Amino acid sequence: MTELATVAVAGATQDMIEHVIVPAVKAKMCRFILFSTEALSCDSQEIECRQSSTPESVVSDTVQAIVNKEATVLMKGSIHTSAILREVLKKENGLRKEKVLSQVSVITLDDTGRQLILTDPALNIQPDANQKIAITKNAIDVAHKLGIKHPKAAILSSVEEINPKMPSSVDAAEVANYFETNPLEAIVEGPISMDIATDQSAATIKNYQGKINGDADILVVPGIDAGNLLYKAFTHFIPATVSGAIVGAAVPVALSSRSDNAATKLASLKLAIQSR
Amino acid sequence: MTELATVAVAGATQDMIEHVIVPAVKAKMCRFILFSTEALSCDSQEIECRQSSTPESVVSDTVQAIVNKEATVLMKGSIHTSAILREVLKKENGLRKEKVLSQVSVITLDDTGRQLILTDPALNIQPDANQKIAITKNAIDVAHKLGIKHPKAAILSSVEEINPKMPSSVDAAEVANYFETNPLEAIVEGPISMDIATDQSAATIKNYQGKINGDADILVVPGIDAGNLLYKAFTHFIPATVSGAIVGAAVPVALSSRSDNAATKLASLKLAIQSR
Repeated sequence: MTELATVAVAGATQDMIEHVIVPAVKAKMCRFILFSTEALSCDSQEIECRQSSTPESVVSDTVQAIVNKEATVLMKGSIHTSAILREVLKKENGLRKEKVLSQVSVITLDDTGRQLILTDPALNIQPDANQKIAITKNAIDVAHKLGIKHPKAAILSSVEEINPKMPSSVDAAEVANYFETNPLEAIVEGPISMDIATDQSAATIKNYQGKINGDADILVVPGIDAGNLLYKAFTHFIPATVSGAIVGAAVPVALSSRSDNAATKLASLKLAIQSR
Repeated sequence: MTELATVAVAGATQDMIEHVIVPAVKAKMCRFILFSTEALSCDSQEIECRQSSTPESVVSDTVQAIVNKEATVLMKGSIHTSAILREVLKKENGLRKEKVLSQVSVITLDDTGRQLILTDPALNIQPDANQKIAITKNAIDVAHKLGIKHPKAAILSSVEEINPKMPSSVDAAEVANYFETNPLEAIVEGPISMDIATDQSAATIKNYQGKINGDADILVVPGIDAGNLLYKAFTHFIPATVSGAIVGAAVPVALSSRSDNAATKLASLKLAIQSR
């Protein structure tokens, strides 16, 4: 058995303790160090509360716990994501590892249990081809850590052929070419459309001759707008559990939004722990 | 009772006659003039078959039937959409009406019957703010023709506030401002995110103070990639009937893709007839 991970939470709240942190401890997912300006109360051997004087010091104290190797996962509480990332990226903290930090969201469809790794729906606004290569690497790394040994990554566009008028198709080809020359334990294909990437019958009808035939594990979206709309379609119209983490730094950052329910927040925490 | 519309079909096939055209006639949706290089057979008073010598003359003969006012709706058969649009847009044909042609897709969710008008998921690749204004006008026009007297149009982005680094949010504000100054019988709001536009509980949780609170009728997407992904999520993951038409010319063009089933093709035909 591996040792329990320790998660440092920036901006923990009493509500979070009740709905996420105590349930996670009960499920033996991890230990916690909670940072807050509030004096939090919790009686568990697995939860340590530390009070910081200001919101700014909540962020720096939390990240310092990572630098000191007291914790190996960061979790966002009631603090802006940008404030945490700024601190993580500070040179003197030495936590910047990959070229690009990116968000991965794992969508697990309720009806079939199918898992889709969606990236990047939130962090990189208009990534260029090089940034998309880094985003794809980050997602492949997560897939490997989730136990998918040879993930299929679809570099999405609206078409399957390069169209110079459609930048997403040009970028997708560049990303796919990069991985042809620099292969990882993964299949990377693009440009490819969403239906062929996720629906085998569409791939058959369209007579698609690639290696991805409706069975993509990773969906790399062209930009934040496409990713955000797809993410929201999955979270609001399709019965699914969706978790999110920011990866690419020395430690993953578990994310959740105000409107997430407790199950989603726990799923995001689990994803971040698995992505170490 | 209004007179039946006549639909001119470019590139009709025997298969289309069986699965779409005869059922449409039986449902008293319209009359047809079919153009094809094949000698088609059909015995119905409501279906006229005309043979053209080449694929090129199929297109020009079909559009000429519109110019001559023999038909008021175009329908795409086994002919490239671009070939039809090129012919429609030829100056001498006088069928260009609005500044921008755009695709509208109407998504009807099976479980609730809710209708969403999605635009433009297919035709305009990277529309600028002026083109988005035209796309929005076209969609509002369709909504009116579908009987929605005061449609709510959400100009989508990934955020609700203008972020200069996120072009979709800047464009969305420009579109919304235009309709403030040049109001139509519609509410146009943006930038707005997909969840607030379509899910009332998200609007409530995020304390959104606009006029659209999960009840958007029209979703204007930032560009083709976002639209295409959203469209494919709806067609492949959510039980829904999806129809499509190109509007903005003197007559609507009913669209369908190779992989559409007969119900979808009929729905697209109905949408185009309603959009006259």
